[in-house]
Amino acid sequence: MVNYEVRVPTYKASAVSPSERERILARPIQDTQNIRKIVEPIIDDVKARGEKALIECAAKFEKAELKSAVMKAPFNESLMKVDPRIREDIDIAYNNIYAFHSAQLRPNISVETMRGVVCQRMSRPIERVGLYIPGGTAVLPSTALMLGVPAKVAGCPHIVISTPVRKDGTVAPEIVYIAHKLGAEQIILAGGAQAVAAMAYGLPGIPKVNKIFGPGNQFVTAAKMHVQNDYGALVAIDLPAGPSEVLVIVDESCNAESVALDLLSQAEHGLDSQIVLIAVALTDEQFDQVEAAINHHALRLSRSSIIQHAIKKSVIIRTDSTDEAFEWSNLYGPEHLVLHLKNASSYLPKINNAGSVFVGPWSPVSMGDYASGTNHTLPTYGYASSYSGVNTDSFLKYITTQELTEEGIQRLGPSVIRLAELEGLTAHADAVRVRGVKL
Amino acid sequence: MVNYEVRVPTYKASAVSPSERERILARPIQDTQNIRKIVEPIIDDVKARGEKALIECAAKFEKAELKSAVMKAPFNESLMKVDPRIREDIDIAYNNIYAFHSAQLRPNISVETMRGVVCQRMSRPIERVGLYIPGGTAVLPSTALMLGVPAKVAGCPHIVISTPVRKDGTVAPEIVYIAHKLGAEQIILAGGAQAVAAMAYGLPGIPKVNKIFGPGNQFVTAAKMHVQNDYGALVAIDLPAGPSEVLVIVDESCNAESVALDLLSQAEHGLDSQIVLIAVALTDEQFDQVEAAINHHALRLSRSSIIQHAIKKSVIIRTDSTDEAFEWSNLYGPEHLVLHLKNASSYLPKINNAGSVFVGPWSPVSMGDYASGTNHTLPTYGYASSYSGVNTDSFLKYITTQELTEEGIQRLGPSVIRLAELEGLTAHADAVRVRGVKL
Repeated sequence: MVNYEVRVPTYKASAVSPSERERILARPIQDTQNIRKIVEPIIDDVKARGEKALIECAAKFEKAELKSAVMKAPFNESLMKVDPRIREDIDIAYNNIYAFHSAQLRPNISVETMRGVVCQRMSRPIERVGLYIPGGTAVLPSTALMLGVPAKVAGCPHIVISTPVRKDGTVAPEIVYIAHKLGAEQIILAGGAQAVAAMAYGLPGIPKVNKIFGPGNQFVTAAKMHVQNDYGALVAIDLPAGPSEVLVIVDESCNAESVALDLLSQAEHGLDSQIVLIAVALTDEQFDQVEAAINHHALRLSRSSIIQHAIKKSVIIRTDSTDEAFEWSNLYGPEHLVLHLKNASSYLPKINNAGSVFVGPWSPVSMGDYASGTNHTLPTYGYASSYSGVNTDSFLKYITTQELTEEGIQRLGPSVIRLAELEGLTAHADAVRVRGVKL
Repeated sequence: MVNYEVRVPTYKASAVSPSERERILARPIQDTQNIRKIVEPIIDDVKARGEKALIECAAKFEKAELKSAVMKAPFNESLMKVDPRIREDIDIAYNNIYAFHSAQLRPNISVETMRGVVCQRMSRPIERVGLYIPGGTAVLPSTALMLGVPAKVAGCPHIVISTPVRKDGTVAPEIVYIAHKLGAEQIILAGGAQAVAAMAYGLPGIPKVNKIFGPGNQFVTAAKMHVQNDYGALVAIDLPAGPSEVLVIVDESCNAESVALDLLSQAEHGLDSQIVLIAVALTDEQFDQVEAAINHHALRLSRSSIIQHAIKKSVIIRTDSTDEAFEWSNLYGPEHLVLHLKNASSYLPKINNAGSVFVGPWSPVSMGDYASGTNHTLPTYGYASSYSGVNTDSFLKYITTQELTEEGIQRLGPSVIRLAELEGLTAHADAVRVRGVKL
């Protein structure tokens, strides 16, 4: 037996009681109270002092000196000098995301629920959307695509991007290029809670947005949660965010190297990444191969220290059947679910709670993270039980209409009069009566 | 000139500057801070003591003595003795709502974004939904229909209802009848923040729900906003709620009596109801007729004191054109928008922000409130700029999938490798490389 440096706690499903199951899958508790105390003064400061506060934040957090905290379109060509191959890669990703999100658009609905009673539904883009793109040391053009392309598909007329600058006060050219491609009107040079505040309450010359999108650290999330509960901001958010996570289900058909790298590519996201592996009816020998591959790559990869930390906190469950495996998976409700199973797509009907599913041996999470066409802004922390990931509808509102004919109100009106009177709302009843309806 | 008792402040649009326009349409500020301080100890108490806390709340707030705070299905026939005509009215409303919300279901999506890259989307019902039905003195079966029928259409397997009891400790038979029709598993006998807490955190024998729906007073709303920000609750909510509101646009084709009752049926909802009338190019004589009708009915109706209070705080704008009228309307973003206009439906393309629209002379808001088929749980307070009303999708989640063939990853993989490396995520790149993709 090899003496592994990276050991993942492993459980046999058959030996685990239901309550233990919940404990094993529990995510770390989010300390929102203390974060809120840090975030609220920043929000208040941006509300009160606007761009001045943002410039000070950039100096404090990004160590960058800014003259202005806003870049306005059209952006100068010199700000978007991108390697032509990368530009092409971005364009390919853009097109795939565009195609999949266009397929989510749907025609207006019209239903004659009774003769003379026509109900319809029409969609409208949200007028002003704010997209938060994390950044700083890393460049994250993929998030700009994942938030911007569906906004474009939905037809949102005003797109604002907010992203922290690099130390030299600039924004990565890839992000400026995507902002340009999207027709974004402004880039607010801010990260963290200050970015959320700037989008929620507006800046001189930049009206507040109607909805804020985007992943981010705990400060960004706390700020989003704060503004969504402030009637004064009148702003919606996409979904609550937590640390990124993956659950991988494998059977004996799996390739150990692929499995290991799918797990570790989640681990490299950050120290708080959550990773679960469910191994269905593997022999001990097959299982050892997977563990050996994890160990090998964990030590080798460039973000090894982050990876080793994250992977040690992860969990392996060994089950006897795929049914059991999907029970565990649905209980966990992973952001990313990877299926290294024979006839993987035949298991889709068993999935109830998940953000996005990666089906079969040729579908690593990286493909969806960047370019397959699906969105990578997904529910984490178990919120997959009630939220969808970001999609085209996230950028639309639906307005219903009803038009009755005189015959329609004559038919349906008596029921409405009686129900309104039952509820004690006599003016509601009289609004029907005044149109000539009698009981 | 008549000496009216009920006078509504009236503005000429042409004399109002843009900044005044916002002031005129401003809703009253919601004091959420103080409400939160009242609500949070109630939530904590229900979390800690469960049903005992609910029983004490019923004694305190509803003056009702309860032995148990939960009714479990199957509900006894004796609890749902409903006038047969009302039962029929409920059934008609149920069927219309069912028809319109069924039309909102949509098939799974499948797109081959590139050769060998297939992205799909499938929907799943939210497993446990909690429906809050306001009550107490009034009976509100319509809300039970508006929340329960789409849950049923979506296929949610577990429906919990929470509603405050009457003084005698019972629930209106109409609500029990609807709960039975929906297949709800429990009725929690609680209103206010305590109901929200019971649904969010669960009770012995009643697991927590994944999403909470329903209108309610400011305590219910504050509780919903509290739990949606608590990672420990892991619960979503439908939408933020504010006082109910209507905006009515009329031209010379309008019937003054109908207009008056459409306005007043909004006013009777409560002291904080918001009412806006936009009169397009009415002669003074026509305008006087509308004012006279408002005055006449405001004094006559059963909820006259509520109505008189609410209508005095409302606003009338006189504009010269329909274009101007819709500018005002979109700025306000009304929950209910009523069009008393010639060729009313031709104006639908002009509407950007609204909850539900009532088109033409035979479509009073009451019809949609009860039975036309549209939902009456709608965005208020201006949230129509970013939220849809409750609809079938509110009870569903969408899960995306991607399945690549070997050819697919060979085609798209190089772009993903380059983009991942640009972002410094080498394990993401290696997860593609390990599958045989080379740059």
